[in-house]
Amino acid sequence: MTEQKASALTHFDAQGQAHMVDVGDKSETRRVAVARGSISMKPETFAMVKSGNAKKGDVIGIARIAAIQASKRTSDLIPLCHPIPLTRVAVEFALDEAQSRIDCSVTAETVGRTGVEMEALTAVNVALLTIYDMCKAVDRGMRMDGIQLMEKLGGKSGHWVAGQ
Amino acid sequence: MTEQKASALTHFDAQGQAHMVDVGDKSETRRVAVARGSISMKPETFAMVKSGNAKKGDVIGIARIAAIQASKRTSDLIPLCHPIPLTRVAVEFALDEAQSRIDCSVTAETVGRTGVEMEALTAVNVALLTIYDMCKAVDRGMRMDGIQLMEKLGGKSGHWVAGQ
Amino acid sequence: MTEQKASALTHFDAQGQAHMVDVGDKSETRRVAVARGSISMKPETFAMVKSGNAKKGDVIGIARIAAIQASKRTSDLIPLCHPIPLTRVAVEFALDEAQSRIDCSVTAETVGRTGVEMEALTAVNVALLTIYDMCKAVDRGMRMDGIQLMEKLGGKSGHWVAGQ
Amino acid sequence: MTEQKASALTHFDAQGQAHMVDVGDKSETRRVAVARGSISMKPETFAMVKSGNAKKGDVIGIARIAAIQASKRTSDLIPLCHPIPLTRVAVEFALDEAQSRIDCSVTAETVGRTGVEMEALTAVNVALLTIYDMCKAVDRGMRMDGIQLMEKLGGKSGHWVAGQ
Amino acid sequence: MTEQKASALTHFDAQGQAHMVDVGDKSETRRVAVARGSISMKPETFAMVKSGNAKKGDVIGIARIAAIQASKRTSDLIPLCHPIPLTRVAVEFALDEAQSRIDCSVTAETVGRTGVEMEALTAVNVALLTIYDMCKAVDRGMRMDGIQLMEKLGGKSGHWVAGQ
Amino acid sequence: MTEQKASALTHFDAQGQAHMVDVGDKSETRRVAVARGSISMKPETFAMVKSGNAKKGDVIGIARIAAIQASKRTSDLIPLCHPIPLTRVAVEFALDEAQSRIDCSVTAETVGRTGVEMEALTAVNVALLTIYDMCKAVDRGMRMDGIQLMEKLGGKSGHWVAGQ
Repeated sequence: MTEQKASALTHFDAQGQAHMVDVGDKSETRRVAVARGSISMKPETFAMVKSGNAKKGDVIGIARIAAIQASKRTSDLIPLCHPIPLTRVAVEFALDEAQSRIDCSVTAETVGRTGVEMEALTAVNVALLTIYDMCKAVDRGMRMDGIQLMEKLGGKSGHWVAGQ
Repeated sequence: MTEQKASALTHFDAQGQAHMVDVGDKSETRRVAVARGSISMKPETFAMVKSGNAKKGDVIGIARIAAIQASKRTSDLIPLCHPIPLTRVAVEFALDEAQSRIDCSVTAETVGRTGVEMEALTAVNVALLTIYDMCKAVDRGMRMDGIQLMEKLGGKSGHWVAGQ
Repeated sequence: MTEQKASALTHFDAQGQAHMVDVGDKSETRRVAVARGSISMKPETFAMVKSGNAKKGDVIGIARIAAIQASKRTSDLIPLCHPIPLTRVAVEFALDEAQSRIDCSVTAETVGRTGVEMEALTAVNVALLTIYDMCKAVDRGMRMDGIQLMEKLGGKSGHWVAGQ
Repeated sequence: MTEQKASALTHFDAQGQAHMVDVGDKSETRRVAVARGSISMKPETFAMVKSGNAKKGDVIGIARIAAIQASKRTSDLIPLCHPIPLTRVAVEFALDEAQSRIDCSVTAETVGRTGVEMEALTAVNVALLTIYDMCKAVDRGMRMDGIQLMEKLGGKSGHWVAGQ
Repeated sequence: MTEQKASALTHFDAQGQAHMVDVGDKSETRRVAVARGSISMKPETFAMVKSGNAKKGDVIGIARIAAIQASKRTSDLIPLCHPIPLTRVAVEFALDEAQSRIDCSVTAETVGRTGVEMEALTAVNVALLTIYDMCKAVDRGMRMDGIQLMEKLGGKSGHWVAGQ
Repeated sequence: MTEQKASALTHFDAQGQAHMVDVGDKSETRRVAVARGSISMKPETFAMVKSGNAKKGDVIGIARIAAIQASKRTSDLIPLCHPIPLTRVAVEFALDEAQSRIDCSVTAETVGRTGVEMEALTAVNVALLTIYDMCKAVDRGMRMDGIQLMEKLGGKSGHWVAGQ
């Protein structure tokens, strides 16, 4: 690995030491990030979550709140993240009965000097963890997959879409 | 879904309302949980992380610290989790060059009234998120998969191993 | 005021200086506290909350989660509180249509060296604040009243009931 | 309740799902909120607090610090609150000997995209809880009442005063 | 350095990787730690703090509260610290007019599986930082020195006193 | 002390009551602060840290991460500090073998309404505490000294350098 490659990881300085990158010169622009992820479970567990969503035992509703709150804790959890004043967070769930899987998608926004990818991804992770927590008494083998950034808008790097 | 099934989700009472489950009658025993998960990336990104691990730009070392700290924040992040005095947390990483993938495994332990699955899983999630954060400038398409509980010891439910 | 009276406020030492009181010699016993409080609003606001509770816009469900999470933050918020490993938290709401008022009641439990009154009261306060937050766009004049401890069990002081 | 009314609760989207409302388009203006609340106690307790305020055992001084710190934790406690960079927080107490009651008033300010009502109200609540905590050893029956927003300035909704 | 010496730093495993050390086998005993530290300032600044302590502008009282609260945040701040349920925290200040210096001493206690040195030291540090914060408008050159553990009781290592 | 001097401590109002100072009228400018401090230890301990830095048991790397994270917690720890969106944090260590001492220097930056001295100082303190924590098993007598602000740029008070 050459020196050049090392500096490509911007969270490290020329000596390879971690720092919180200087964003003071970046302009304050609207920035959006969309992330998603899934949790797979047994059909019986899926049925419980689904029915709860409509009537009682609202697993999905609680996971949504946990996700929103976690987005606000991102810079506390991820060591080199800048603190960011989020201006919007929205959390969507889709219930895929055929796959016995719940998909979560989070959109985070700010008007700031750096992007909100980590806020969106952290929210997805905590949404899935919260579903796991509430269902683990009946299904310890649930599995989280496909957690990734889907789209990113704003800032110098412009519009980015996964898979393009 | 019958009433019985609803009550199987122990985080909800008979009326389907969320609560922090009573664990006051459970005995204080040693409890262990092991969780794991992976993050996949481009071969170039993988090479940077791998070389950094040995010499400079220690992505893995920082992810380990973030994971340990996150394990202590679990009950803050997951709404219905009990606060638990962790007695041990260990975080291992394996670098799979063929798959261009980093695997993370966390072991959490307590001597307490309830298990530490969520602490182990939360630590894995934050380890992977931290790797994502530090490499995202060069690779936004990284993906987290296979996050799951591998093993659980202690408490009424005894020894549980994934896939058995 | 005499010296004796000053020392009656146990959070201050003989010199009147604040400290976190020594509870190391207290035994670990099961301790329970019940607190309650209310928020009054316009009938129109009450109707929105009530209908949301059943179908969509679940104000009450979100307030319940906020209350449970706040109970775990009590020693972070109240300077001289001891950190306490809660073993149970339950939050009940009653909708009083005649008074256009929502009543909240929280039961907190621990097996520990000191009581959980503050955890129960903090949870009630944050439940009411969360209701206020979600309804304030339509009703800024909502008012919180009657926040108090209702009952306390365990520890040297035994069973205490409000108004007795 | 019609659909229209549901959407009046801005913390829920058209499907009734909670979100952190988009404030990215709001302009950054100076915003002020004033909230107040009271705690009633036995005359003996009141006398202790009052005398401590002047000489030793400074209950009021500690409650003031707890209130200021709590105002900074508001978005951590209230699920759908935006994180806000407070530019000023002031906490006043008035001792009403005739009523054996302590009144607390908090003024919070920011230059931001959304109001600071929740910050002011949260600070009042934690001030009163802190007084309760420090006096509970001698008076468990204290009661908090009249917690409400008094005034609000700035933003689209302009100047709002309670009772007008 | 030999392998043996490396393992003397117990926060690293045999491979030199950081972990939260296993304390599950340690017995729960009463543990006490005393730490101290000082902040030096200009005589004019010292005079302000001293007079404020007695009459108005209570710098010392606020630093005491900040120290107690910080002791409860220790495991959040120090990556490899175990979460510990503190049973007592006391903070003393001595005003040394001749040296224009304020000395702070903190005693922390728990009944637990590991010591409370870090809790006592963290409290001292935050006490001094709080004094700095409140006086910095008039004296930016203040300096913190002599922050160290003075005494430690309980656990396998027994009684330790600085300088012996 | 005259009234005038009392008001020189800006964290207290005219009545001597603590408040979070109004910075709403200050302009948003780039602000920089540099702080430093040291920890002294036995030569054997120093040798372990030094060798670990290069090969295994990376005490310095972990202290750097803890410092960066602590800088983001400053307003949570120091009661009257404003929350500040840091735009950069860099942590340097120098190993002074002759003195068996590790020196830490932190640079913090923001574009905001108030300075970042406290963020830089808090990061230094937590860096030193983290080193203490990781080495305390072999050297309880380590001592932290010389923690002070070195330089400050931006805001009304302009450029300040220690000792000038």
